[in-house]
Amino acid sequence: MSDTFDELWADLAPLGRHRSTGGYRRYSWTGADTQVRDWFGAAATARGLSVETDRNGNLWAWWGRPGPGAVVTGSHLDSVPDGGAFDGPLGVVSALAAVDELQRRGLRPAVPLAVTVFVEEEGARFGVPCLGSRLITGAIAPDRARELTDADGVTWAAAMTDAGLDSDRIGPDPDRLAQIAVFVELHVEQGRALVHQDAPVGVASSIWPHGRWRLDFSGQADHAGTTLLADRNDPMLPFAETVLAARSAARAHDAVATIGKVHVAPNGTNAIPSRVRAWLDARAPDEAALRAVVAGVDAAARDASAAHGVALSSYQESFSPVVDFSTALRDRLAALVGGDRPVPILPTGAGHDAGVLATAVPTAMLFVRNPTGVSHAPEEHADAADCHAGVAALADTLAELTGAR
Amino acid sequence: MSDTFDELWADLAPLGRHRSTGGYRRYSWTGADTQVRDWFGAAATARGLSVETDRNGNLWAWWGRPGPGAVVTGSHLDSVPDGGAFDGPLGVVSALAAVDELQRRGLRPAVPLAVTVFVEEEGARFGVPCLGSRLITGAIAPDRARELTDADGVTWAAAMTDAGLDSDRIGPDPDRLAQIAVFVELHVEQGRALVHQDAPVGVASSIWPHGRWRLDFSGQADHAGTTLLADRNDPMLPFAETVLAARSAARAHDAVATIGKVHVAPNGTNAIPSRVRAWLDARAPDEAALRAVVAGVDAAARDASAAHGVALSSYQESFSPVVDFSTALRDRLAALVGGDRPVPILPTGAGHDAGVLATAVPTAMLFVRNPTGVSHAPEEHADAADCHAGVAALADTLAELTGAR
Repeated sequence: MSDTFDELWADLAPLGRHRSTGGYRRYSWTGADTQVRDWFGAAATARGLSVETDRNGNLWAWWGRPGPGAVVTGSHLDSVPDGGAFDGPLGVVSALAAVDELQRRGLRPAVPLAVTVFVEEEGARFGVPCLGSRLITGAIAPDRARELTDADGVTWAAAMTDAGLDSDRIGPDPDRLAQIAVFVELHVEQGRALVHQDAPVGVASSIWPHGRWRLDFSGQADHAGTTLLADRNDPMLPFAETVLAARSAARAHDAVATIGKVHVAPNGTNAIPSRVRAWLDARAPDEAALRAVVAGVDAAARDASAAHGVALSSYQESFSPVVDFSTALRDRLAALVGGDRPVPILPTGAGHDAGVLATAVPTAMLFVRNPTGVSHAPEEHADAADCHAGVAALADTLAELTGAR
Repeated sequence: MSDTFDELWADLAPLGRHRSTGGYRRYSWTGADTQVRDWFGAAATARGLSVETDRNGNLWAWWGRPGPGAVVTGSHLDSVPDGGAFDGPLGVVSALAAVDELQRRGLRPAVPLAVTVFVEEEGARFGVPCLGSRLITGAIAPDRARELTDADGVTWAAAMTDAGLDSDRIGPDPDRLAQIAVFVELHVEQGRALVHQDAPVGVASSIWPHGRWRLDFSGQADHAGTTLLADRNDPMLPFAETVLAARSAARAHDAVATIGKVHVAPNGTNAIPSRVRAWLDARAPDEAALRAVVAGVDAAARDASAAHGVALSSYQESFSPVVDFSTALRDRLAALVGGDRPVPILPTGAGHDAGVLATAVPTAMLFVRNPTGVSHAPEEHADAADCHAGVAALADTLAELTGAR
């Protein structure tokens, strides 16, 4: 089992990795994405699974004929800019290794089993996270998805068409969802709760409500040397006040808020910007707290913009309500995974395809320990032994859920 | 005279203009730069001028054999990102139109006359403004210039080589400077002093000392959803505090300070940044005030970085001391240009090649009225009548300085 995980991991590791940063740049429908999708297709086919691409661009590798009562596991292969190796790929590689483990044990599922790869989970290219799972469940309208654009103005529809798929056919896929009895996603932990509890594997309880908001501060481009301070409409100033307000608002509500993405136009040293576009990522234990954080940031941004003669427009790019995973399924997994030892049961601030699918099918998540807690960065890591423990836990889970014998 | 200015202007206008913003993107050694340099070569040749490229990539179009006692006029053709049409090109087009005017009047200079185009005046691609004039005067070491890089890591040396020039030969050119008796640069005003004084043309008194500083805030990239506020080393926060500190420091010293260029890495919505790199442009009436502004910004950046567990490194990219233009030359020009009416004499916060050359040769500047004061933006403008008045003033100046008859 460890061998097959390690081999799969080593094959996948170089694909889409940036030479100088060591981070991954696997953005949907780019060359790196094609490489990792092809890698998945080849690895699944080599295991006797039959691979299909659904109407929304997600990949499905079936053990047995697709049909009702299916047990599905998987994650995603796309990355944030200069992301780590584990966020997403750990779930996909562990799923394939778990299939190997079932085969090694001489087990055969009594129901269809599928390994999935959801597309554009990070939203790094087109701005909306979990786009593949949102499309399949109807959480985003196909027309809106088609018109999403990347930084170069390329639409989702155009990128999908370039990749050889038909963007006219994207949208809700209730027939496919109706076949799924249960979905399980294994993921690297993105905090240190398992470190504190000294456990290699945990089970998810809930996902914090979270969302993304775009803030456009529009001022007047002008010469940095000759424009008096009093004559300026410099959007960088209300932007800066908003960054600080986001931190204060998050602190006040025991939430988190981050401004990690900024576009400045024209972005010249000796030009006052015409526009600063910033993205707010906010998450909180409950929706009331989240709404309060966002309202606080928005009010601060409006006040600061008005004070500087800058126009502000803000826009909710995505919103994900709180997800409480199935309690029955969670307890069943915890018993399976832990054996005699109690397994940590954790909430998380990270969104996942599992969270989107939870609105349509019974869903659970397994987390694998992350020694530093670092994620979305090249330093993201999980020890090999913990990864192997994750594969074993997933194999046990799949054997039980599929009634394999 | 107006006809030839208008024709030259209309020919140059479409080159390097961005279709959607309407601003110019004429960056050194790019395709747009080649177009405007070729345009200049053709326009100068059509007037019987002989065109040469100096060792540093600056263009010189000579009326008469190059030699001692030369009168030189010109400006630059490169732009800031999405810059306006006038900053730089107005001086070049006016110089060619002034040559036409001398020829129309049947005048012939008694000394050599040259029209110049200095390369990389804005520093938009390689970060150091007035690079062509700094090289020729020795204000920047050739080794340092060769190693300057653009946003894609391309060096000045490589870009120059690609353009067919020999970057080994860049550096001080004292023989060329020794031939120059006087340099005059005509430029669009980048403020509204001429509007307030109701005059189409003015003469420069001085250039404020100014410089560029780069600030690198280095934190730890991490997941925006799962990293507790207390566990973060988010460089966006001290960056934001620094933006606000720059404004306060400038206000306190009657100076200007701008942060108009920012690079965020990895620049993902759901990733805490690993690094925010920002450029400070600061200018003040005197060097003591300028140093005080920069020290204030640096201290605020250091305090804020320390408070957030972020490492800061700061670096002076360029510094230009105060330039006081030749008083005798200034008064001579003012008398020539104004006739009976007193001509406005203005200081400016903008750096120019004339300011760099002033360290080596007697130098003067003419400004043409800018009705809105906007510069470094697509809205930058000068009325045609004022441009024509600028050409007439420059022609009168050149006729006098060259002893044309």
